[in-house]
Amino acid sequence: MSDSDRELIVETQYWRFAEPPDRLKLRCGEELGPIDVAYETYGELSERKDNAVLICHALTGDAHVAGRHSAQDEKPGWWDVMVGPGKPIDTSRYFVVCTNLIGGCKGSTGPSSINPENGKPYALDFPMVTVRDMVRVQHAFVRNCLGLERLLCVIGGSFGGMQVLQWSIDYPEMVYAALPIATTSRLSALAIAFDEVGRQAIYSDPNWRGGDYYGRKPPHRGLAVARMIGHVTYLSDQSMHEKFGRGLQDRPGFGYDFGPPDFQVESYLRHQGDAFVQRFDANSYLYITKAMDYFDLVSDYGTLIKAFEQVRSRYLIISFSGDWLFPSYQSREIVRALQANAVLASFCEIESGYGHDVFLVKNPALENIITNFLNNCQDGIRGVSQCR
Amino acid sequence: MSDSDRELIVETQYWRFAEPPDRLKLRCGEELGPIDVAYETYGELSERKDNAVLICHALTGDAHVAGRHSAQDEKPGWWDVMVGPGKPIDTSRYFVVCTNLIGGCKGSTGPSSINPENGKPYALDFPMVTVRDMVRVQHAFVRNCLGLERLLCVIGGSFGGMQVLQWSIDYPEMVYAALPIATTSRLSALAIAFDEVGRQAIYSDPNWRGGDYYGRKPPHRGLAVARMIGHVTYLSDQSMHEKFGRGLQDRPGFGYDFGPPDFQVESYLRHQGDAFVQRFDANSYLYITKAMDYFDLVSDYGTLIKAFEQVRSRYLIISFSGDWLFPSYQSREIVRALQANAVLASFCEIESGYGHDVFLVKNPALENIITNFLNNCQDGIRGVSQCR
Repeated sequence: MSDSDRELIVETQYWRFAEPPDRLKLRCGEELGPIDVAYETYGELSERKDNAVLICHALTGDAHVAGRHSAQDEKPGWWDVMVGPGKPIDTSRYFVVCTNLIGGCKGSTGPSSINPENGKPYALDFPMVTVRDMVRVQHAFVRNCLGLERLLCVIGGSFGGMQVLQWSIDYPEMVYAALPIATTSRLSALAIAFDEVGRQAIYSDPNWRGGDYYGRKPPHRGLAVARMIGHVTYLSDQSMHEKFGRGLQDRPGFGYDFGPPDFQVESYLRHQGDAFVQRFDANSYLYITKAMDYFDLVSDYGTLIKAFEQVRSRYLIISFSGDWLFPSYQSREIVRALQANAVLASFCEIESGYGHDVFLVKNPALENIITNFLNNCQDGIRGVSQCR
Repeated sequence: MSDSDRELIVETQYWRFAEPPDRLKLRCGEELGPIDVAYETYGELSERKDNAVLICHALTGDAHVAGRHSAQDEKPGWWDVMVGPGKPIDTSRYFVVCTNLIGGCKGSTGPSSINPENGKPYALDFPMVTVRDMVRVQHAFVRNCLGLERLLCVIGGSFGGMQVLQWSIDYPEMVYAALPIATTSRLSALAIAFDEVGRQAIYSDPNWRGGDYYGRKPPHRGLAVARMIGHVTYLSDQSMHEKFGRGLQDRPGFGYDFGPPDFQVESYLRHQGDAFVQRFDANSYLYITKAMDYFDLVSDYGTLIKAFEQVRSRYLIISFSGDWLFPSYQSREIVRALQANAVLASFCEIESGYGHDVFLVKNPALENIITNFLNNCQDGIRGVSQCR
């Protein structure tokens, strides 16, 4: 374990957003409360409170973005390649924050949380939460728990990028810089289709029981299939060819049966499915994929240009050439709409055949771009402060 | 109903390939017999027997390629856009033949057929069948039932294209021309992955019972999910955008629930899944996707160039630019290997954003190319005959 690893021992903390009657009125019309928010912070807030970076996690992420919970922890947080001392999102320079989304299952209130009305897990009585609701809760947390009036940067990939966009629209004064990665202003029919098939796999598991499985056998088979579908869409033809090709799994020839996997790629997918169900709740998967499908800045604001009319942030939009789930043209649409509003927006398409999930793995090009952007942002926000 | 439709009333016929002890020794080492073959023919065989066109069907197809079984039939055969009087595969000129694959569930022997050893459906006691086995049965049928020594053309798309390639390799003297469409010499890791996730959806359905569900409730939920996964891969980002976009399904706004579909694309997929389970057997889906995954001309022959060393056919290879399941580069590999053997091989990539399944829908470019190729083949085969 290196020195820098030893420094990053973190703890998940919890904050309660609202007690009744201060319930959050959600976009769907229902109310939710109380709301707990699980979060982690890394590094120190500067005296001027101008170095906070909020990281928004993707579909199956959590607040544990980097470091380890103890020295014995086998695996670090989900974006440890990017976040830590001396890394692009440098915790020796920036005060880094990540919260678990509401609707999730990693400490923030979600369908597996206890419904105060009956003392049982919500299950499908949990109200539908949208990206805007999720961001409202994050905002309340940032203001009221952390006491911050401004964020140097809000950054996130995939579903996290949708939250970044929503943050910059809903709280323009608070977001100095926005860095949405591999994301879209609205999900395509193709991406909705994959989400829906994943949900159908969960619905089809008899252990799902209409969502009412807590304390019983959970719908692990259905959730595993959903995860396998998702996982294929996060990779690409090229990356799967390079990773697995047609390699066989620990056997000299075909099995000619339906037992153990013939191909490495089959074994990998089965493993991904099995591992996922140990760490994720099926109902949360349903709620968050729905929030993703519902996200649509065009229909919310009339046009994408109108969506960005009030923003004040500087943007860096990043996409990847090999991402066929949230393809680059969807990032370009965002850039064009920002530029039509004369907003400072840079765009970078990184050449990579890896697929959608490439932002989660080690990638020097991405690291350089993020390092430089945050550097410039910090110079910029301090320049702005001096002028005041 | 037009005149040409009225002409094409067809009947599925049956032929028994082998009685014990003439059982077919399969590639997996097991034996199978007796084997029934369901088939349909259209048009008339010429006196010289030089106008027979064999069509090989894809994963979920059957022998009923065109026309109707009765005037009351609502839907015609699966490639009725291409096959019929005056159509590109012109049944007034060609004697068109299609057989249901072994392993299938539309009349040819498959896992739902009765196992003569115990009088019960085979289920997973059905031996694993490969593309080579399927083609051997087709070959026996063509020779022994139809009495043909030569086929003007063997044609098929997707999994059908694999059979076309295998035909031209295993029976070079019999195949005057080969027309594989939107196919590959071996499935990519990406395509294997999607097949495997579909199988996992079936395995996960408790009604599957290890394949032993005949006479009971079949695993319709799992099979429907498998079909939905497949269906998404047969379309494309572009075609799904054009077909559905983010259009809502018979509702003014989001439902904010997990009930009826919000989006048209969800409704479409659910319908595709529900319709499919009425016409297809889950075990056949397992067997045929396995045969597809196992197909690999490179590993069978050492290299793709070696695979085509003995071929005698002229080839037309067709791919589609928007096909991301069996992308054009995979067709180009076939063309290069054929040309390395100095085989007459033309290649055409048709511009289309539709996706893999585009060969099944009306497409003037494809129609023209097939019309002309078959024309030329007929001229060619007759020229050859005259020289003899």
